[in-house]
Amino acid sequence: MNRKKKAGTGGRAGELSCRVWIGDIRPSLDGGRFPAKRTVGDTVTVTADLVVDGHDTLTGVVRYRAGSAASWEETPLRPGVNDAWHGSFTVDRTGPWEFTVEAWVDRFGSWRAGLEKKAAADRVTAVDLMDGAALLDAAAARAGSADARLLKRGADALRGEAPPERRVAAALGEELAEAARRHPDRSRSSALEPARRLTVNRELARSGAWYELFPRSASPDPERSGTLRDIERLLPDIAGLGFDVLYFPPIHPIGRTNRKGPNNRLEAGPDSPGSPWAIGAEEGGHTAVHPDLGTIEDFDCLVATAGEAGLEVAMDIALQCSPDHPWVRQHPGWFRHRSDGTIACAENPPKTYEDIYPLDFECADWRALWGEMLGVFRFWIEHGIRIFRVDNPHTKPIRFWQWLIGGLKTEHPDTIFLSEAFTRPKMMQALAKVGFDQSYTYFTWRNTKRELTDYVTELTRPPVSEFLRPNFFTSTPDILPQYLQFGGRPAFQARLVLAATLSASYGIYSGFEFCEAEAVPGTEEYLNSEKYELRRRDPDSPGNLRPLIARINAIRRENPALATNERLLFHPVDADQLICYSKMTADLSNIVLVVVNLDPHHVHHGWVDLPLKAFGIRPGDAFQVHDLIGGGHYLWHGARNYVRLDPAQMPAQLFRLRRMVRTERDFDYFI
Amino acid sequence: MNRKKKAGTGGRAGELSCRVWIGDIRPSLDGGRFPAKRTVGDTVTVTADLVVDGHDTLTGVVRYRAGSAASWEETPLRPGVNDAWHGSFTVDRTGPWEFTVEAWVDRFGSWRAGLEKKAAADRVTAVDLMDGAALLDAAAARAGSADARLLKRGADALRGEAPPERRVAAALGEELAEAARRHPDRSRSSALEPARRLTVNRELARSGAWYELFPRSASPDPERSGTLRDIERLLPDIAGLGFDVLYFPPIHPIGRTNRKGPNNRLEAGPDSPGSPWAIGAEEGGHTAVHPDLGTIEDFDCLVATAGEAGLEVAMDIALQCSPDHPWVRQHPGWFRHRSDGTIACAENPPKTYEDIYPLDFECADWRALWGEMLGVFRFWIEHGIRIFRVDNPHTKPIRFWQWLIGGLKTEHPDTIFLSEAFTRPKMMQALAKVGFDQSYTYFTWRNTKRELTDYVTELTRPPVSEFLRPNFFTSTPDILPQYLQFGGRPAFQARLVLAATLSASYGIYSGFEFCEAEAVPGTEEYLNSEKYELRRRDPDSPGNLRPLIARINAIRRENPALATNERLLFHPVDADQLICYSKMTADLSNIVLVVVNLDPHHVHHGWVDLPLKAFGIRPGDAFQVHDLIGGGHYLWHGARNYVRLDPAQMPAQLFRLRRMVRTERDFDYFI
Repeated sequence: MNRKKKAGTGGRAGELSCRVWIGDIRPSLDGGRFPAKRTVGDTVTVTADLVVDGHDTLTGVVRYRAGSAASWEETPLRPGVNDAWHGSFTVDRTGPWEFTVEAWVDRFGSWRAGLEKKAAADRVTAVDLMDGAALLDAAAARAGSADARLLKRGADALRGEAPPERRVAAALGEELAEAARRHPDRSRSSALEPARRLTVNRELARSGAWYELFPRSASPDPERSGTLRDIERLLPDIAGLGFDVLYFPPIHPIGRTNRKGPNNRLEAGPDSPGSPWAIGAEEGGHTAVHPDLGTIEDFDCLVATAGEAGLEVAMDIALQCSPDHPWVRQHPGWFRHRSDGTIACAENPPKTYEDIYPLDFECADWRALWGEMLGVFRFWIEHGIRIFRVDNPHTKPIRFWQWLIGGLKTEHPDTIFLSEAFTRPKMMQALAKVGFDQSYTYFTWRNTKRELTDYVTELTRPPVSEFLRPNFFTSTPDILPQYLQFGGRPAFQARLVLAATLSASYGIYSGFEFCEAEAVPGTEEYLNSEKYELRRRDPDSPGNLRPLIARINAIRRENPALATNERLLFHPVDADQLICYSKMTADLSNIVLVVVNLDPHHVHHGWVDLPLKAFGIRPGDAFQVHDLIGGGHYLWHGARNYVRLDPAQMPAQLFRLRRMVRTERDFDYFI
Repeated sequence: MNRKKKAGTGGRAGELSCRVWIGDIRPSLDGGRFPAKRTVGDTVTVTADLVVDGHDTLTGVVRYRAGSAASWEETPLRPGVNDAWHGSFTVDRTGPWEFTVEAWVDRFGSWRAGLEKKAAADRVTAVDLMDGAALLDAAAARAGSADARLLKRGADALRGEAPPERRVAAALGEELAEAARRHPDRSRSSALEPARRLTVNRELARSGAWYELFPRSASPDPERSGTLRDIERLLPDIAGLGFDVLYFPPIHPIGRTNRKGPNNRLEAGPDSPGSPWAIGAEEGGHTAVHPDLGTIEDFDCLVATAGEAGLEVAMDIALQCSPDHPWVRQHPGWFRHRSDGTIACAENPPKTYEDIYPLDFECADWRALWGEMLGVFRFWIEHGIRIFRVDNPHTKPIRFWQWLIGGLKTEHPDTIFLSEAFTRPKMMQALAKVGFDQSYTYFTWRNTKRELTDYVTELTRPPVSEFLRPNFFTSTPDILPQYLQFGGRPAFQARLVLAATLSASYGIYSGFEFCEAEAVPGTEEYLNSEKYELRRRDPDSPGNLRPLIARINAIRRENPALATNERLLFHPVDADQLICYSKMTADLSNIVLVVVNLDPHHVHHGWVDLPLKAFGIRPGDAFQVHDLIGGGHYLWHGARNYVRLDPAQMPAQLFRLRRMVRTERDFDYFI
């Protein structure tokens, strides 16, 4: 089908004579420059301003298709407030979609609306009826056989001998109007071009629980590196905690030149394993597995076993090299050279990172370099990986990511890219706009009620929510937030609940469940970070949060309201340290209410103020709240309700809110 | 100059390898779909988000030109908050302008910033200095002779034998940095395409005082129609009132078929002059002058004489016909025909207007029809008209206006089009977006403080202020607002001040100055409207507002703050019926403060709360306010000040606010 023609900027008469004016189509990012993001199964509501000169009735459709090769489908536009029309369709497969709006003057509808008013004023003339008959003739000529007969009959009735009232009544019949609507004259329809775009991802791009693990720390024997095989043994446990994604820092051979020692010391001992981000050694680079971890076959096996356990493996892709990376020898031109002929190492002046050579994405041979990078991703895709956590994407050109992700998604629309950029807001947004499906956020540094409310509101409302999907990690190997350093176990519990309920996607980095909180003083670095050494943890250590994590992840699975950020509302609480918010499904069948005490040290209590109308609760009705963590059941009544949270017990309550199924007012005789 | 190349989507290396990312350029309407409006002499500030990967320094320019044939000029971009960069240029001629943003990595600047940090940490190496020398060599190769020598010398100094500290100091020299900045490597610069557009109008498009007059009412003899010659005699008086634009309803021959009588009666008496909007008769159509008014020569003469008096004549163009219009015979195909072969008259069901035939802008022969409409405008342009008030543009296709105004502005960038559309907001906005320079508004129906504040705020802030310039008429031949019908003389005074100070463009329709307030009961129609009969007014009738109008227009001319809507601020007053606002010039040299009592029947008083900081007044300083209407001088102190307005005297105060020139604190010894 000829897209240009069907999208209809003009039809036969040329664009100029198209009378319907289309403005402000949504969703649309930066005037159509970038696609908005949606998830398979989403209902996409398109709105557009439509106006036409004069008093004519207009009508229109949303046109949409899954990719530029598919044929267009249509769904009607309906009028809303202030000339904003809307229509919806469901995206049922991953990949690029596009949509536009087409609208035209509804001649029979215009005539019919006029006739209705004239009939009410008793001012219908014979010519009025004949005009309508002519419009029905034209519609009949456009129609297939069945409707043509009906329309012809309608036209004949209008021209017939019956008394005018009878002819008016016939003309206004709904069946006739519907038949006429089915065969509009769209030769002068207007359509907004270019079509707007959507990127449709699978569910896991929007919602998932991530667990980050250093494979080399998976060993049961503290004397040797963990292996991919060791991880296989852990899978039932991780799956049992309710995680969806198991994510590894780089698993490649690690350079020896300028290798870092424990706590980022410049000298590594002979047994120092080095940083996994110093990628590449004699044994290989970005497509190799570190010999200590196992083989590529082990990797394939782990990916398959994880899949069987309901866990998808995500890989960290860090496009940088140790001085020992094979590319350094094979493609010295891919690195920036200094005046003395040496390769430039990574810098953030005045600091230099001698164990890392950044790739020069604008080198003379950039096309080959970019192609090789694409090859790295393709390699791991071949090995079953579909989720990539990209390390420091903001130190590589934005257009590189646009090109790379665009290319990979064409081949594999089920891929998911998480941007690990902790940097300037505009850069984080640009990366999301050009293709990253998920983004790390400033969540770790948002701790007070005001900070959380402002930031999460920004993230969950357009325009940001149209292109940036947050993934709230409670900590990362690089960030042990001060709140966790000094808040103790209640702080970990509170941040877990916040991350898991404020954002549809969230993650923890292993160690979080054991409330590991020891930092290099005055920094956010973990003391004895496993970035530079092996680590073994005891899964049964006292006070660990594993039961709570399992419960929270189970709650997330049982409550679809938590799988989206679309309907997040913050509610007033008259206590500064208490934050209260809710999420609900579009049909209100699932409503989750969360209250968290942000002060890990003291009991706080207060009154929350709930928008009962938004929850579909009638003002006088009682409703049940069931604390899904603590198990308590409460019967609440009215908008204001009391909460009290003792961090020593549990700093959060997570309620499922249920409307009463029935009251005596629902009986017939009460109405 | 090759625009594509100079605007630089890529330069030599192709778009993909351009590292600077440009987002959210402003001003930009609907992603660049429409031009923003500016006035000759305006400083246009362009902002855009710029980010680049890594730690490099970036730099950029705004590129702009007056029309696509002009050569591009450049002005530097400077960094602002949150990666929003900004640069300004002045538009010095009417017509279409365009601008974009170009940005690139500043290699020497990046190196220099790094060197500064390394020097502070005492970590500069010899290679660091050599790297800088290489960058200076490259800059020298790009530079002309003078700068080349300087840059070469800089490179040599870096490579030289001097102690490192000396070489670092040389490298950080400002003269060297400036020379390097003058010769950047822009081969991989990024530019946003397509360029954004501006429409630049002359001053009168933004600011002017309009006076609307029915030429046939200009007769000193109540027994005969006024003529264009009669108007010539009135010109000194109208100019003396301080108006800029003299605007006439249609002056063409008026149809006889179905001519309307007084008060819109269906039967016209033999002497009924008919409605000027029922255009066209045996004597001619849209390019003819009604014989009762005079000849085209009289018209030419009037336009010239008005010009000498400082008045520009604006014409009403109503693209519709009486049944007697020559086009009806010459081009029956330009009208819609009904089933019985008759031409359809205007309708707003159930009402029909038998004296008006609308033109069918989508008829088969639409190109010829549109061409003829263009010819009508061209005809009057030939006769010296540059300002067109377009009647009911919303009953003609939006794209027709886009085409027509676009075409005329190419030929005559000094034309001004005022949209007389009182209709749905989105339609009014669409008309403004496609080309109308000014728009009628809902001002007549905004009467309370809340209504005025909300509406005027919407009009004077982006996005609306970027494309819709309001023209506040206090009344029109079709609208005698209820507020005026029942508010008496104080209501007229208050609305005059509001219109003339809230909007840079405003107008009155003759009769307003005499507080004509008699309506057809229950409507907004004037009783005995001069739309259907001759009218004579006594310029000296008691209580007329001519002195106030002259004063207000003089104040408008003396206070440039009133010539723009850009810096309008509303201020709190603790009295519901008092509204207070200010306008100021960008340099704060002119600040006008207005207080209006919106209740025409009662005295109100209260305290206004002024944002002294915005006015450039130090917290403790006194300031003078001078009531430009009443003449009173007051010395105010602090943000809160008392006002009291008695509508029986004058319902408005219009203050010029002056900072004290000097206090004892300005003496040296006080500091």
